[in-house]
Amino acid sequence: QGILERLDAGEIVIGDGGFVFALEKRGYVKAGPWTPEATVEHPEAVRQLHREFLRAGSNVLQTFTFYASEDKLENRGNYVAEKISGQKVNEAACDIAKEVANEGDALVAGGVSQTPSYLSCKDKAEVKAVFRKQLDVFMKKNVDFLIAEYFEHVEEAVWAVEVLKESGKPVAATMCIGPEGDMHGVLPGQCAVQLVKAGASIVGVNCHFDPDTSLKTVKLMKEGLQAAKLKAHLMSQPLAFHTPDCGKQGFIDLPEFPFGLEPRIVTRWDIQKYARKAYELGIRYIGGCCGFEPYHIRAIAEELAPERGFLPEASEKHGSWGDCLSMHTKPWVRARARKEYWENLKPASGRPYCPSMSKPDGWGVTKGGRELMQQKEATSEQQLKELFQKKK
Amino acid sequence: QGILERLDAGEIVIGDGGFVFALEKRGYVKAGPWTPEATVEHPEAVRQLHREFLRAGSNVLQTFTFYASEDKLENRGNYVAEKISGQKVNEAACDIAKEVANEGDALVAGGVSQTPSYLSCKDKAEVKAVFRKQLDVFMKKNVDFLIAEYFEHVEEAVWAVEVLKESGKPVAATMCIGPEGDMHGVLPGQCAVQLVKAGASIVGVNCHFDPDTSLKTVKLMKEGLQAAKLKAHLMSQPLAFHTPDCGKQGFIDLPEFPFGLEPRIVTRWDIQKYARKAYELGIRYIGGCCGFEPYHIRAIAEELAPERGFLPEASEKHGSWGDCLSMHTKPWVRARARKEYWENLKPASGRPYCPSMSKPDGWGVTKGGRELMQQKEATSEQQLKELFQKKK
Amino acid sequence: QGILERLDAGEIVIGDGGFVFALEKRGYVKAGPWTPEATVEHPEAVRQLHREFLRAGSNVLQTFTFYASEDKLENRGNYVAEKISGQKVNEAACDIAKEVANEGDALVAGGVSQTPSYLSCKDKAEVKAVFRKQLDVFMKKNVDFLIAEYFEHVEEAVWAVEVLKESGKPVAATMCIGPEGDMHGVLPGQCAVQLVKAGASIVGVNCHFDPDTSLKTVKLMKEGLQAAKLKAHLMSQPLAFHTPDCGKQGFIDLPEFPFGLEPRIVTRWDIQKYARKAYELGIRYIGGCCGFEPYHIRAIAEELAPERGFLPEASEKHGSWGDCLSMHTKPWVRARARKEYWENLKPASGRPYCPSMSKPDGWGVTKGGRELMQQKEATSEQQLKELFQKKK
Amino acid sequence: QGILERLDAGEIVIGDGGFVFALEKRGYVKAGPWTPEATVEHPEAVRQLHREFLRAGSNVLQTFTFYASEDKLENRGNYVAEKISGQKVNEAACDIAKEVANEGDALVAGGVSQTPSYLSCKDKAEVKAVFRKQLDVFMKKNVDFLIAEYFEHVEEAVWAVEVLKESGKPVAATMCIGPEGDMHGVLPGQCAVQLVKAGASIVGVNCHFDPDTSLKTVKLMKEGLQAAKLKAHLMSQPLAFHTPDCGKQGFIDLPEFPFGLEPRIVTRWDIQKYARKAYELGIRYIGGCCGFEPYHIRAIAEELAPERGFLPEASEKHGSWGDCLSMHTKPWVRARARKEYWENLKPASGRPYCPSMSKPDGWGVTKGGRELMQQKEATSEQQLKELFQKKK
Repeated sequence: QGILERLDAGEIVIGDGGFVFALEKRGYVKAGPWTPEATVEHPEAVRQLHREFLRAGSNVLQTFTFYASEDKLENRGNYVAEKISGQKVNEAACDIAKEVANEGDALVAGGVSQTPSYLSCKDKAEVKAVFRKQLDVFMKKNVDFLIAEYFEHVEEAVWAVEVLKESGKPVAATMCIGPEGDMHGVLPGQCAVQLVKAGASIVGVNCHFDPDTSLKTVKLMKEGLQAAKLKAHLMSQPLAFHTPDCGKQGFIDLPEFPFGLEPRIVTRWDIQKYARKAYELGIRYIGGCCGFEPYHIRAIAEELAPERGFLPEASEKHGSWGDCLSMHTKPWVRARARKEYWENLKPASGRPYCPSMSKPDGWGVTKGGRELMQQKEATSEQQLKELFQKKK
Repeated sequence: QGILERLDAGEIVIGDGGFVFALEKRGYVKAGPWTPEATVEHPEAVRQLHREFLRAGSNVLQTFTFYASEDKLENRGNYVAEKISGQKVNEAACDIAKEVANEGDALVAGGVSQTPSYLSCKDKAEVKAVFRKQLDVFMKKNVDFLIAEYFEHVEEAVWAVEVLKESGKPVAATMCIGPEGDMHGVLPGQCAVQLVKAGASIVGVNCHFDPDTSLKTVKLMKEGLQAAKLKAHLMSQPLAFHTPDCGKQGFIDLPEFPFGLEPRIVTRWDIQKYARKAYELGIRYIGGCCGFEPYHIRAIAEELAPERGFLPEASEKHGSWGDCLSMHTKPWVRARARKEYWENLKPASGRPYCPSMSKPDGWGVTKGGRELMQQKEATSEQQLKELFQKKK
Repeated sequence: QGILERLDAGEIVIGDGGFVFALEKRGYVKAGPWTPEATVEHPEAVRQLHREFLRAGSNVLQTFTFYASEDKLENRGNYVAEKISGQKVNEAACDIAKEVANEGDALVAGGVSQTPSYLSCKDKAEVKAVFRKQLDVFMKKNVDFLIAEYFEHVEEAVWAVEVLKESGKPVAATMCIGPEGDMHGVLPGQCAVQLVKAGASIVGVNCHFDPDTSLKTVKLMKEGLQAAKLKAHLMSQPLAFHTPDCGKQGFIDLPEFPFGLEPRIVTRWDIQKYARKAYELGIRYIGGCCGFEPYHIRAIAEELAPERGFLPEASEKHGSWGDCLSMHTKPWVRARARKEYWENLKPASGRPYCPSMSKPDGWGVTKGGRELMQQKEATSEQQLKELFQKKK
Repeated sequence: QGILERLDAGEIVIGDGGFVFALEKRGYVKAGPWTPEATVEHPEAVRQLHREFLRAGSNVLQTFTFYASEDKLENRGNYVAEKISGQKVNEAACDIAKEVANEGDALVAGGVSQTPSYLSCKDKAEVKAVFRKQLDVFMKKNVDFLIAEYFEHVEEAVWAVEVLKESGKPVAATMCIGPEGDMHGVLPGQCAVQLVKAGASIVGVNCHFDPDTSLKTVKLMKEGLQAAKLKAHLMSQPLAFHTPDCGKQGFIDLPEFPFGLEPRIVTRWDIQKYARKAYELGIRYIGGCCGFEPYHIRAIAEELAPERGFLPEASEKHGSWGDCLSMHTKPWVRARARKEYWENLKPASGRPYCPSMSKPDGWGVTKGGRELMQQKEATSEQQLKELFQKKK
């Protein structure tokens, strides 16, 4: 059954977790460029991660094609060990995802995300051409549906949806925005309306913010759609990091990004709370983004097991709410084998010399959007090099 | 070259990270029993983790045989999905480690750890028989050397070393103790002396405490050996969790163990500091235990690259000290591409409602050791069941 | 010169600090009832505190008549050591304030605050009669001007202003509200408009919130007045406690109120920042409320000394920005004798087992205002006793 | 009855709190020099503080003669508003203390503390002459007993005790040391022995460390005396600041000293725990030092009221364990009117951007004591000026 059949039937669909962060820790992705050439260089590592998510309960395996548009790979070309074509990266990503999906009952989703072309102010036709190149691969490999994700500007997201809709396949669209809306100041409710009007059947958010903040944003999207009398399925794939202190542009601006985020990593219990709240909000496509490891996805599946009627395979190695501690030799560890314990625990950081919140770097709330970013950010490699030289 | 040749020549040997915690997050190990039947059930997952550590710079791959003694597997038998013999688990562990070690230049170490037999006060002969059974497999599979690790009582550790020495292979011995010493109150210096006298060529600590605390303990061991005019190589494989607040029995007693430790996870920069301090202390076998992911091991290899003259393979996907951020589009993220930044960052937890330290559960400093534990802890399954029923 | 002459001339007027909290710590006021019978019982203690504020730079001494309305004193009568009439309390308060004011160049302000009569839904005439009784004393004692302060409902504040205006003296009005507005949901801008229309020449906020939050509220008041093309002087007298985590009803609902607020106490440097921000926002009557000790008031006077051209008397015992440490025997303490040091210090709590924020108790944002409060809160002594008995 | 009669009879004697910190906040003492010329300049302020402590339960009023030795006053002469002789300061201090003591049933203790003369390596005779000058005043004014307090070097403390013993009056001696001992490395047990042998009838610690740390030190003193078969009464007057993170020289070295200590201020409940622990340890002279306000002293008296059989006068304005909240209008505030609530509260700092602990400045554990300090610290005014100029 396809994604829309499942959602239309009221099923809960569980997404997967974040590939770039998980594979960075495993040694296969470079932080900063974050490009997915690992699908060609180390397919076994990508395959294994897909398998873990499948086992943890993911119903959708997303092709590992984040930042795999031709222009992005070129832009960051100097970071790729050997020059690998975008086509090769995207094809390999599809092959691996499909192979693992067939080991279970998962769908494969091809994904596109925001492009350097948009940021450097190329026109609509040029930006669309970039998406179309990736779409060609997804069609050739016949993925089950398509996701436009990680967009900071609704304008570009709409262009992406329009291209993906050409395929005739279902399209989901998630933006990496918070309750304040996109970088041009378009509010979440309005973003959702534009995406649905462009053809998205599923809308929501991914990345940049923690589960709580992300759910607030999806709630605003839901209200926007209701006000416009539009219908769409809701989706959320937040960070697995606590970010109560971040500004409009999310965790990128936190001083800890990307190499000091460890104390912010959410627990499995945080995720169970997130899954329950997402469900209660009416979200039926529930997954994760950066920071989500397989055990976080399993926590979604375990929390919603009563509604779904089954546990994921990986739960054979996990007792619900710490139940597997009930046979521990120490009595006080046995005492942790219960829901109330973990639900109420306020976990210590072990870091008394560190604060609990940070002030984000950056310009705070960017007002001008794309134009301002173009002006202030260097987008071509040349510009970057110049800027960096100057800094030194 | 064997482990002792390398260490005798002054080489730095990098260990690997913690399998039970990493594989628990990936969905293959059950917290609580922590037994390693994954070597039989999901060899590809174990193989992949070995590969990641090898790629990250590990010179030693430890067989994934933690808590794989026959008595432990039986004791926790009801948790193992299907009944798998200890022999099968241990053999598979050796096969996988050797297979991956051959993909690089790593040594394979067979490992034994503390047993339920000792805790339930079986006699020396019985406890030794348990170790000998695992050793038989290691000899059959011809591992490169042997490690007795994760012992809370030096008495049992000595028995383990004595058994392992029968093999004629080099033996390393690490205890999971802190500066206060073992559970019977034997101080670290004295523990080291006893282990070396029993035949260990390498001594140190693993697990239970964070890097700083573990280094203090190894320092005490070093001083004990010097005072006794004994020689041995030093080794440390600490937790990758900050635990300044734990008591004599380490992180087991922290309220966050084992499902709420996320905010305590150390960063790669914490590990670089640890590697440097370990090196300065004269430790030449430097690795990790629970919580250590491949990127933590890579951090050891990168910190000590000047001394060793080379970087690990996985560094192709990692710029030293955040260098890979130097081309980021946002200027304030580019500003993070330098050593001073990450060295001095005090990372926030994003958890303003949580404390920074916890009071450990438990009896605090156990005075009576093995006898007291027997009295207060339930060690047979039957006892545990009874206790647990009573609790309910 | 009167208060309006000073403010109209562009002078900065410095208020005083919080009497009930300071005198509670000194042993003369009971937390909970907070009534000011100390003016009769221990006039020397009240006099001394006035003197300290005068010396610290206060230009206004408020009569210590907080919660000194007849109905409040009666309501809490059982707490007053010996039955003292409201008239006596209010008269003594005026006498003491005037005596000390004459030692310097300060004005005396008579103050009224919210009443149990309003909360228990007595009608306008009855509530006004309560205020009028206090006003009679202020007129008899001929105070310089009048302040209606600590009102949670703008309706009652307006009634108070109307009564005070009958005197012909200048009237200031401050509410204990945050940016969300009063307990009936009237927003700060609208509150300010109503108060000015009722006759207040000076409007602002006092108590319940920390300096930062209070300044946000005054900013909203300022904008409301501008939109309504009304003119008034602005005033702020916030808490000297950090309360970033409190809800609509302020610090009362924080679990630490009132006996565990110590870790929230602001430093003198926090106050200097507050004074500067208040000044920049156009506020010219700048003082404090609960938690403000004499040294906090001095910090306002020192921060604004460049604008005012003089320091307060108490600065003879205070070096600007830690200057008095420049002769310390320890070099690292001498290094603290500079502005940048104290300005940037992030002071530690010394409490690693405590969180940095709390979840407020209570109903969160009360929707129904006075009616709901009447329904849920017990306002008569009888009701309170019944409730409390039931609880036990 | 004299101090020794009371202690010998098993009575609990309650000391007073810290004058320099309390009067600094009130505007009468300058931080850094900390000298007590307020006794001459503003006797009413000193008198009022004495009264508050008396009312809070203090059985001893210490003359406000801290840092009032002739050499200290001279050394810091440039800070004293007008040149006031040491004799005048000390005489006024005695007069005020005696006046207030006579209002109740308190004893007056004359105090001496460490001198610049010792630090600048003057010889025994010279240092003793300094103490003798203060003693002359105490004898003339006929105080009840004498305290040598705030000594970092036991050698100087012994000299002080020897001088004070010449008077024939009872002598107490407290050092401002922690469990690591004095600045020359003399351990607490040994310090106590030396002080008792020199003639002190009461020994203990004051200042520099928080209650918990101070009690550890007194415990070591007690054990030292027991081992030496010496008898003396025990005394503790710690800080009212949490300082778990300070080094050997105490809170002076914390980055927050002295103007950012607010978040460390202990609550009344912390003090009740301290009083109970002190009592259980056998300490019978229980008071406080810097940071102790009258309500902290009252907390000692309230905690030990069951043992003593009475409450202090100031308890008429304080319900035991928050009892005075039982009539609050808000039910959740009423719910705070109980012991378990305040006993278990972990008060939040309201400062999410601040850490919970600091790294102390300074040399850490000073090894050489007086000689080293002489070498590294500037003790004459000239030296200080030079050093400071150089720094600028």
